[in-house]
Amino acid sequence: MSDMRSQILVATARLIEKQGYHATGLNEIIRLSGAPKGSVYYYFPEGKEQIGAEAICEAGKIIAERLRGLLEHDPNPATAIHNFLMWMADDVEKTGFGAASPLTTASVETAATSERINQACRDAFDLILAVFKDKFLKGNYSDAQAQELAVFTTTVIEGGILMSRAYHRAEPLRQAAGHLQKYLNSF
Amino acid sequence: MSDMRSQILVATARLIEKQGYHATGLNEIIRLSGAPKGSVYYYFPEGKEQIGAEAICEAGKIIAERLRGLLEHDPNPATAIHNFLMWMADDVEKTGFGAASPLTTASVETAATSERINQACRDAFDLILAVFKDKFLKGNYSDAQAQELAVFTTTVIEGGILMSRAYHRAEPLRQAAGHLQKYLNSF
Repeated sequence: MSDMRSQILVATARLIEKQGYHATGLNEIIRLSGAPKGSVYYYFPEGKEQIGAEAICEAGKIIAERLRGLLEHDPNPATAIHNFLMWMADDVEKTGFGAASPLTTASVETAATSERINQACRDAFDLILAVFKDKFLKGNYSDAQAQELAVFTTTVIEGGILMSRAYHRAEPLRQAAGHLQKYLNSF
Repeated sequence: MSDMRSQILVATARLIEKQGYHATGLNEIIRLSGAPKGSVYYYFPEGKEQIGAEAICEAGKIIAERLRGLLEHDPNPATAIHNFLMWMADDVEKTGFGAASPLTTASVETAATSERINQACRDAFDLILAVFKDKFLKGNYSDAQAQELAVFTTTVIEGGILMSRAYHRAEPLRQAAGHLQKYLNSF
């Protein structure tokens, strides 16, 4: 991918993460990415929806890759996921509760308003679910358990991000890390 | 509250729930509520942010009241919460995944962009957390457990709404209902 194209997508993902897809305008994307206006139209002739969808796809790939690496630090899925949530809580706190994942914001606000953005969110979530499922399978959970617990783990993480951002406190995510670990260890 | 004022707030909550706070404009609020433009400015001289904040406060009160009623159907907190999540899954499905709670959308997108809306979300969540905490206390959970589990329950519900809306399927919420019930019963 060209540097300019990639810069535009990174800037867009950051804006969506912070304020959502609807609040993010093309001019803001141009400003934050530092890309000339013409290049935005050149790379993304279909406009904001195309940029948003591709930004979410790229973010999904990056998040899934980083997640895979972080989960490798501990062989036990419950412990590895607990540590990942604690790391995420620190991260959300450090950004002043303005960041975490562009998926959290975009998936809710576009569920009934943009099928294209919503599809991109689903594709990105699919990558993340696959990483969790792999981790559970390696930890000897059954295939059905691995599938269900991947969804539940992602559910708890997304809910934790939402509550932590709402309260401007990392505790909901940290507490969720403990509860989820306890639950995953009960299998 | 006057009928007109209340109509404006209900319409606003519905729009925020579906598409988020940022995507919701004053003109759309006026159109959906059927209120004359002048009355919107009369009741809410501070504009969209005031309407949004008050709409979220009102929605919080209504959700907490409905939740309290639904949780009374079963004396066991784990069972009552399970049944509430199953009811919510049906509800999200029925609306074509376009609704659930205005808090879900607004709390994430305004965490770093509007302190006033975010404060309204926190106030609304506080009402909901208090209902869950009461239920746990009545079920003989300790005070510390009741407090933490109220937050975790809300975390799971918000994450479940998010995943169900992203996938346009009620399964993430229904599965979360089962996992949460099992976990709450383990205390």
